[in-house]
Amino acid sequence: MSEELINHIRKFVPLNDSEAKDISGYFELVRAKKKTNLLKENSPCRSLYFVAKGCLRLYFVKENGNEQTTQFALENWWLTDYTAFQLKKNATHSVQAIENSELLSISSQQFDLLLSNHSSLEKYFRLIFMRGTSAAQTRMRIMYDFSREEMYHQFVSNFPGFVQRIPQYMLASYLGVTPEYLSEIRKRSIK
Amino acid sequence: MSEELINHIRKFVPLNDSEAKDISGYFELVRAKKKTNLLKENSPCRSLYFVAKGCLRLYFVKENGNEQTTQFALENWWLTDYTAFQLKKNATHSVQAIENSELLSISSQQFDLLLSNHSSLEKYFRLIFMRGTSAAQTRMRIMYDFSREEMYHQFVSNFPGFVQRIPQYMLASYLGVTPEYLSEIRKRSIK
Repeated sequence: MSEELINHIRKFVPLNDSEAKDISGYFELVRAKKKTNLLKENSPCRSLYFVAKGCLRLYFVKENGNEQTTQFALENWWLTDYTAFQLKKNATHSVQAIENSELLSISSQQFDLLLSNHSSLEKYFRLIFMRGTSAAQTRMRIMYDFSREEMYHQFVSNFPGFVQRIPQYMLASYLGVTPEYLSEIRKRSIK
Repeated sequence: MSEELINHIRKFVPLNDSEAKDISGYFELVRAKKKTNLLKENSPCRSLYFVAKGCLRLYFVKENGNEQTTQFALENWWLTDYTAFQLKKNATHSVQAIENSELLSISSQQFDLLLSNHSSLEKYFRLIFMRGTSAAQTRMRIMYDFSREEMYHQFVSNFPGFVQRIPQYMLASYLGVTPEYLSEIRKRSIK
C-alpha cells in the first residue's frame, strides 16, 4: 500500500529501493471506513495523512451546529490540520473519510525524524507545500471573484469525476450554498 | 540588505558565513517605491520576493474593474503569484508595493539553482510553505465562519500595528466590505 506513496515521491525526487523501503517504515497503514473521523476538532492532532485510496475532507462545526467542509483530499494528496500538526496543538478542524479509504499516516515526531534521516524528502515536501500555497492563492481568487455557480463549474472541471463521489450536501457546504440551490445549478448545467 | 534574509533563514536552518555570502549572491536587491507594480496580471511572473522592509500586496482586477486585494506580505514574508512562478506562466495576480519597500528578488531559474546548490534551503522553504499551507487553512476557516466585523478584529489582533500602514480602501477590499462599512466597524471598535 505504501507503493502509491513511493510512486508519488519518485515523481519529484529519485529514491533507490533501499531508501524507499526505509521511508515506508515511518508510515502506518490506516484503513478507514466511510464516515470514520481520523481527527476531531479540539483534540490533539497526531498525524499527517497521505491518501493512497479513497477521499478525505477537512471540516469544522459552525456556531449554528452545521458542518462546514473547507477542503477535500483525493488520491495522492496530503491532509491534516496543519497548524495543529506543526505546533502540536489541539485541532480547529476535523478530518473524515468520505469513502472507504486507505491512508498512510505519520506522526509529527516520525515526520521530523523521517526528514532528518532522508533529507531528499525536504525537496519533495517543499514542492508539495509550494503547490499547496499556490492552490490556496487560486482558491482565494475563486472565492472572491466567482459566483457560486461558476465555483461549481470550476470544481467540476478541475476534478472531473470527483463530483459523483461526494455527497451533495457536502459539496453544497464547500461551495457555500444550500443543497437545494446546488441541485438547481446541476439541473441547469445538464440542460 | 540581504542581512534580513540571512537572519530569517538562520531562524530555521544553520548557515555558516561562507554559505550565507554565497546564498546572498542569488538575490537582487530591489528598492520599490510605494505603488510600484513588481508583477502585472497577464505578464510573465519572473520573480519571488522576500520583504526585507516595507509591505507588498497581491491583487487582481475583477470584471467590474475593481481591484481585489487577496494577500499582504509584511517584513520577512515571501510573495509572488506562485502558480505562475512555478509553471513559468503568465500571472493571474499583480504584486504591488504598498509602502516604499526593500525586497530581495530571485528568478525561478536562480531559485532552482539556489536549491540545487544549497540543499539545506530545501528545509527552510519546506517550512515556509508548510506555514503558508497552514495559514491558508486558517484563512479559509475565517472566511467561511466569521462575519466581516469579526474578520476585521481578527486581522487587527493577528497583525497589530499593521492596520495603520495599509490604505483603508485596500483593507476594505481584502475584507470584502465597502470603505464606508469598514469606517463604521472601526468607529464601533474605538467606542
